[in-house]
Amino acid sequence: MFRTHHCGQLRITDVNKTITLSGWVAKRRDFGGLTFVDLRDRYGITQLSFNEEVNADLIQHARQLGREFVIKIEGLVTERSNKNSKIPTGDIEIVVHSLQVLNVSLTPPFTIEENTDGGDDIRMQYRYLDLRREPVRNNLILRHQVAKHVRQYLDQLDFIEVETPVLIKSTPEGARDFVVPSRMNPGQFYALPQSPQTFKQLLMVSGFDKYYQIVKCFRDEDLRADRQPEFTQIDCELSFVEQEDILRIFEGLVQHLFSQVKGVEIVQLPRITYDEAMTWYGNDKPDIRFEMKFNYLTELTKGKNFPVFDAAETVLGICATGCATYTRKQLDELTEWVKRPQIGAKGLVYVFCQADGTFKSSVDKFYTQEDLAEWAKVCNAQPGDLLLLLSGDTKKVQKQMSELRLEMGERLGYRDKTVFKALWVLDFPLLERDEESGRWHAMHHPFTSPKPSDIPLLDTNPGDIKANAYDLVINGVEIGGGSIRIFDKQLQAKMFKTLGFTDEEARYQFGFLMNAFEYGAPPHGGIALGFDRLCSLFGGADSIRDFIAFPKNNQGRDMMIDAPSTIHSQQLNELGINLLGN
Amino acid sequence: MFRTHHCGQLRITDVNKTITLSGWVAKRRDFGGLTFVDLRDRYGITQLSFNEEVNADLIQHARQLGREFVIKIEGLVTERSNKNSKIPTGDIEIVVHSLQVLNVSLTPPFTIEENTDGGDDIRMQYRYLDLRREPVRNNLILRHQVAKHVRQYLDQLDFIEVETPVLIKSTPEGARDFVVPSRMNPGQFYALPQSPQTFKQLLMVSGFDKYYQIVKCFRDEDLRADRQPEFTQIDCELSFVEQEDILRIFEGLVQHLFSQVKGVEIVQLPRITYDEAMTWYGNDKPDIRFEMKFNYLTELTKGKNFPVFDAAETVLGICATGCATYTRKQLDELTEWVKRPQIGAKGLVYVFCQADGTFKSSVDKFYTQEDLAEWAKVCNAQPGDLLLLLSGDTKKVQKQMSELRLEMGERLGYRDKTVFKALWVLDFPLLERDEESGRWHAMHHPFTSPKPSDIPLLDTNPGDIKANAYDLVINGVEIGGGSIRIFDKQLQAKMFKTLGFTDEEARYQFGFLMNAFEYGAPPHGGIALGFDRLCSLFGGADSIRDFIAFPKNNQGRDMMIDAPSTIHSQQLNELGINLLGN
Repeated sequence: MFRTHHCGQLRITDVNKTITLSGWVAKRRDFGGLTFVDLRDRYGITQLSFNEEVNADLIQHARQLGREFVIKIEGLVTERSNKNSKIPTGDIEIVVHSLQVLNVSLTPPFTIEENTDGGDDIRMQYRYLDLRREPVRNNLILRHQVAKHVRQYLDQLDFIEVETPVLIKSTPEGARDFVVPSRMNPGQFYALPQSPQTFKQLLMVSGFDKYYQIVKCFRDEDLRADRQPEFTQIDCELSFVEQEDILRIFEGLVQHLFSQVKGVEIVQLPRITYDEAMTWYGNDKPDIRFEMKFNYLTELTKGKNFPVFDAAETVLGICATGCATYTRKQLDELTEWVKRPQIGAKGLVYVFCQADGTFKSSVDKFYTQEDLAEWAKVCNAQPGDLLLLLSGDTKKVQKQMSELRLEMGERLGYRDKTVFKALWVLDFPLLERDEESGRWHAMHHPFTSPKPSDIPLLDTNPGDIKANAYDLVINGVEIGGGSIRIFDKQLQAKMFKTLGFTDEEARYQFGFLMNAFEYGAPPHGGIALGFDRLCSLFGGADSIRDFIAFPKNNQGRDMMIDAPSTIHSQQLNELGINLLGN
Repeated sequence: MFRTHHCGQLRITDVNKTITLSGWVAKRRDFGGLTFVDLRDRYGITQLSFNEEVNADLIQHARQLGREFVIKIEGLVTERSNKNSKIPTGDIEIVVHSLQVLNVSLTPPFTIEENTDGGDDIRMQYRYLDLRREPVRNNLILRHQVAKHVRQYLDQLDFIEVETPVLIKSTPEGARDFVVPSRMNPGQFYALPQSPQTFKQLLMVSGFDKYYQIVKCFRDEDLRADRQPEFTQIDCELSFVEQEDILRIFEGLVQHLFSQVKGVEIVQLPRITYDEAMTWYGNDKPDIRFEMKFNYLTELTKGKNFPVFDAAETVLGICATGCATYTRKQLDELTEWVKRPQIGAKGLVYVFCQADGTFKSSVDKFYTQEDLAEWAKVCNAQPGDLLLLLSGDTKKVQKQMSELRLEMGERLGYRDKTVFKALWVLDFPLLERDEESGRWHAMHHPFTSPKPSDIPLLDTNPGDIKANAYDLVINGVEIGGGSIRIFDKQLQAKMFKTLGFTDEEARYQFGFLMNAFEYGAPPHGGIALGFDRLCSLFGGADSIRDFIAFPKNNQGRDMMIDAPSTIHSQQLNELGINLLGN
C-alpha cells in the first residue's frame, strides 16, 4: 500500500496516528541535526521531519533526496511547534520512521512553484512538469468542475448528451477543415467537425427534443494569439422552442455556473440589440463592467470651422471619470495610442472639465466655453472628468472608440477580473457582405432563421434582415452564440441561394439535411458556448492555453510530443496519397 | 409558445386543463364522425380526439394530417371512455380546439414503430428517421444514463476528467492510425489517438493522481462486424496504486452502474487467472453465466485403440445437461457445426448418459461401459446428460471446445441477456510471439509492467512472464482491460528492446514519455472500458451500432451524410499532398 492518506489531509486531530504518505519532494531544508521535507501531491503539502538524534541513518538517507524525487514514508503525525497557518496541514508534521525512494528525478528545467522561472517554450516542451504546478493544475480542476456543473444543470432539465461523429464530411464553406484520408475509400477524405451543427439539427428532426454535448471541434485556421486548432464547445439544441425559451434556459445555466463554481449570484442578464451594442459601445460584445457609453456629438460640433469635425460623418465622445488630472504627457501618449495602425484614428480631441467649472480643450481655438459645456452636459461629465472625442466614418469611428473605451476602462481599473457582467446581444443581422467578392455571408451560419417579418427582404435588401440570433457576452468576451434555425426546406433553399450556393453545391454539401427537412422537421434552435474560453474567464485568465491540458503553440505544434511529424511512405501509399514535390 | 406539456406527461389528474402540445403524428384513425390522432414526442404518446359534431372544419383539417406531420394543438384534457393501460397517458385524451401544422412530411421510407419494416441499409441512410423509433432512441438515452453514472461514481472518488488532445503524433506500432495532414507544417501529419494511453501516463507524472475521460478513440482497421473506426472509451489512470486498488475501485464502478442503470445488485466479482480461464473455458473472456467447464479426459481415453484420442495431445469433454434427448439428426448437425472451418474440429465424440444408467456413445467400439462411466464421473454427468468430446493439440482444442461450449450454452438458453455475470481475469502473459515474424508483441501494450518476480525472465524466457494486467469480462465480452504500468525508465527501455524497437525508434515514438520518466514518475496503473460495448451490454443487444447515434458501416462509410468524400484539388494543394495515380 502506497498511502493511508494524501498530502492535504492530515490535521491536528490526527496527531499520534501512524500513517503512510507518498508524493513528490517539493523542498528539503537541512539544519543542524534536523531535516525537513515538504512532501507534495495533488491534494496539498505535508511537512516531514527527520531528527539525527532519533535516527541518524534515516536523516542521512533523507539528505540525499533531490527535488521531485518520488518517495513513500511511514511516520507518526505530530503537532508542530512552529505552525504554518498558510496551509491546511500546517498544524502537524510527520516524524518519519521509514523512507523509500520510489523514483528519482533529474533536476527539473524550471521550478515547480506557483511562480516559476520557466519561459513559455520550455514549459510547453515539459508540459508534464508545468502541469505539476499548482496554478496550472487548479485551472484543469476548475475546468472539470465547470463541465460537471454544466452537465448537472442540463441533465436536470432533461437534456440528453449525444455523441456526434468526429469523422464527417468536408464542407468547403466557412473556416478550413482538417481532413483525414480514407484508406478504405481511396481518394476520399473525412473531415473533422468545426462544430456538430448539422448533426444536432438532425437530432432535432429525430425528436431528441433537448440535446447537449461537451465536444471537441476543429478548425484549420492560421492561429491568431489564443486560438487552438482543437477546442471544446458546449453544444446545445432544443425543439419546439422560441428564442425566449433558449435565453431563459441558458441564462439559468450561466447563473448556475457562477453560483456553483464561483459562489457569485448573477441577476437577470440585460439584453441589448446588436444595433444598440454598436451604437453605444461600437462592439457586438460590449464589456459592461463599466458604463462609459458613446455620446453622439456630431450635430453639436458642426459649423464651428473645425475642419476635422465638419468633415466627419460622426463625432463620438466618452467621459473618463476623474481624468482631468491627466498630464500633457499622458494625453500625448493616449493620442499616439489611438493613432497606432491597430486602432487607426487620425487624432484625439480632449476636453478637461476643470474643478472650477471651466473647460480646457485641444480645440479651444474653434469652440467656446458654452460649446464645451454643452458637450460635457451630453456626456454627463462632472468637474474633474475628461472628455475624449474621435471622429470619422461612423463604422470606423465606432470601432476606434470601442478600443479607446476598453483601454480607458483598463487604465481606470474598471475591468476587474473578479467582477462578472453577462448580457445577451440580440437581433444580429442575418447576412454580411464580403467587401471583396460582394457575396453575402451568413453572420452566424446558413441555418440561422431570419425574423419572420424580414423574410421578404431576402429578395430586396438582404443586408437589412435581422436574424433570430443571439450572443452570450461576459466581460466583453463572446462566450457563446446561437439562433433559432430554419426548419422549412423552401426557406433553407432560398437561404443557400442568397449565399451564392448553386443547387448542386447545396445538395452535395447539405443534401442530407435538406432531405431530413422533408420528413417533419420541428421548429428548433440552439446555442454553443466556448468551453475553453468560459473556463479561462472563470479562472480570471486572458489566455485559454493554460486551461487546456496539452495545448498547441501558434504553429499548431504540440512541442511536448513533437507533433505533427513525418509518417512512413508505406503509410502514405496505403492512403493513396503522396507529398507534393516528392 | 409551442407547448405547455410534453406528450408523455398528462394524467387523469390533469382532466379539464386547457393545454398545448406539439409533436409528430404517429397514427391517425378515422371513424364515422370521429378522428383520433396519436401525437408523439420523445416523452411519449398522447391521443388527440376530433369530433365532427363539435367542430366540422377542424376534423376536416385533421383528416388531412399525414404520418410524421409536425403539429401544434390546443385542447382540453378529457377522461377517455376507452382507456389504454399500455401507455402512461392512456387514461386521458385531448379534445382539440385548434390545430396548426408546423411542418409537413413525406411518407417515411419505413415505419416509425418499435418493429420497423426498414432494412439495415435504408435505416442507415435515413438514420434521422431510424432515431425517431423508440427502441433506438431509448438506446441512446441509456447511453446518456450510463455516462452520467460513470461520471457520478468517479467524481465522488475525486477523479478529475481531463481532455487529452485529438491531434497527436502517429505511432506505427499497433493498429493503423488515421492521419491528418498539417497545412501549417507541410509534409507532416497529426494522428488521431487510438487511445490516450501516453497522455494519461503523462498526467500521472504531472501528479493528477486520479484521471478519467469518456473519450473518442480511432482505429483505421479493416472493419470486422461490429467494429467502428471511431469508438468511445472510459479511460482511467491512478497513481500510487497497486493492482488490488484498481480492481476494487472498478468493481465498485461495475456494481454502481448495474445498480443505478439496471437495478441489479452485483456481488463481489470472481477472479480467475488467464491460465485458469484458458484451462477451464479455453477463452480469456469466459462467459460464466453458465458452468459447463472443460474436463480433461486425455489420460482416461488413452490406450484403448481409438487412434484419434491416442494421437491427441489433449482430449476435452463437456457435459450438456439434459441433452441425452438429442436425436441423431441433432448430433449430426452439431458435428457439422464443429467441423465448419470457423471452428475447425475434425469430428465430435458424444456419449449419451441414459436414464437407466447405461451409456451409448459414438465410440462404443473402443470403450467399455466402465470407461464411459469413468468419463461421466469426471464430467459430473447425470443420467439424461450428454457428453461432448473434442481432441487435438491443446491450444487448438481448447479454442474449439470454447466455441462449442458457447454454442451449447446458447442452445440451452444459458446465455440470458437479462442475466449479468462479471469477473476479473488476471495475470495475463506480458508478451506473445508473432508466429510469422517471430517477434514479441505486448499482449496489452508496451507500458504494461511485468510481475516484479518475473522481470529476470526478460533475458531468458520472455514468453513465461506474467504481467500485472487484468481484464474485466461481463457475459463473455471483454468490457475493459488495464495494467499496472512500468514507471521506471530503465525497465521501459528494456521492454522496448524486447519488443524489437531500436533505441532510435523508441526515442522517436515515445521519447517524450521516456523523458517524462526522468523527472519523478510515480507508480501508476489504469484501465480502459469500452463504452459502446458496455452500453450495448446494458441494452441487451449484440451490436454496438444501435448504441451510437451516427454509426458507420463496414466500409467505414457514413451512409447518411455520404462521407468520406472527395475534396477540392485546391484543398489538397494547400495541404501539400496529391492523390496517387493523379
